Amino acid sequence: MTERLEAQIAFLSEADKLKSVLRASRLHDGSRFENSAEHSWHVMLYAYVLADQADPAVQIDRVLKMLLLHDIVEIDAGDNPIHGVVDKAAQDAQEQAAADRLFGLLPDDQRASFRALWEEFEAAQTPDAIFAKSIDRLQVPVGNLANGGGSWRDYNVTLAQLEARVGTPIRRGAPGLWDWILPRLKGFFAKSPS
Amino acid sequence: MTERLEAQIAFLSEADKLKSVLRASRLHDGSRFENSAEHSWHVMLYAYVLADQADPAVQIDRVLKMLLLHDIVEIDAGDNPIHGVVDKAAQDAQEQAAADRLFGLLPDDQRASFRALWEEFEAAQTPDAIFAKSIDRLQVPVGNLANGGGSWRDYNVTLAQLEARVGTPIRRGAPGLWDWILPRLKGFFAKSPS
Repeated sequence: MTERLEAQIAFLSEADKLKSVLRASRLHDGSRFENSAEHSWHVMLYAYVLADQADPAVQIDRVLKMLLLHDIVEIDAGDNPIHGVVDKAAQDAQEQAAADRLFGLLPDDQRASFRALWEEFEAAQTPDAIFAKSIDRLQVPVGNLANGGGSWRDYNVTLAQLEARVGTPIRRGAPGLWDWILPRLKGFFAKSPS
Repeated sequence: MTERLEAQIAFLSEADKLKSVLRASRLHDGSRFENSAEHSWHVMLYAYVLADQADPAVQIDRVLKMLLLHDIVEIDAGDNPIHGVVDKAAQDAQEQAAADRLFGLLPDDQRASFRALWEEFEAAQTPDAIFAKSIDRLQVPVGNLANGGGSWRDYNVTLAQLEARVGTPIRRGAPGLWDWILPRLKGFFAKSPS
């Protein structure tokens, strides 16, 4: 039992480093960039509060666990801004290696179940993963509308890019949320040519 | 439906401020103080990973939701360090007022259910709340052992104080975790007179 607990604490201690992974998104007050640990907390809160936007097949308890784990690989692989230029194959390889090392700190049963939950999120094919992805995409636009454009300005994002990269996954998992935010995005980009 | 969603987004946007509430505890690398949003993510990860330390009556999905919400009142009431000097009655009044305002942003059904979950956590009388409290108490000692004493040094904490304030709730909800950490705490305080 002690060996199991030592492995669990080693994983939890390593996970502390997610608090030092900075994302491209800012806090609502614009004061600083957000880190991936506090982002993970915030998207779980989004999923819990907005659960009534999910397909009835979605199990919100599984979604929360997916979102709890979804960014842990960034400890090794870093955050890849959605509007940045990315070598997708290289990124996937980095994230797989990160998952090997980080989930590999855990006892075997948890290594396997955590890895499976993270792979399910990444694949975005089950109702739970599709909803989790939509929620993960919604949080930044809500923040950017609050802080005057944030990462959209930094990356010169257009409304068309936003509809493709962010609108597609949100519409897929939570169409009501996309219907709600789209007119607000249009209002923002109409006033603020990008 | 739009009115409901507006209320939910207003709550989620206000919740962003938890990322700016600083705690007395530091990151494992000692580089800065931890905020209450990233702390909330970390204790949820602790609860999920260490669920096998809980009493069989504990429903870990409810524990995760409690920990998701447990510090939101700090947006208005601030964080009260466990080793600081606190006027308990004034703190309770501040937290109740904070809960009124913050959960009051939500639609009525969620205001009531979130408030009830937070009150259950605070009262620490149900198996779920007792385990959630024990996990909430464990995270800082693990971090302080990593970063060389952290908040124990800042507040001149003794091992006896730690056993009373931190050991009691951990033992109550997760005795195996206290059995694991106590010798490590003794080792630290023996080497480092406080």
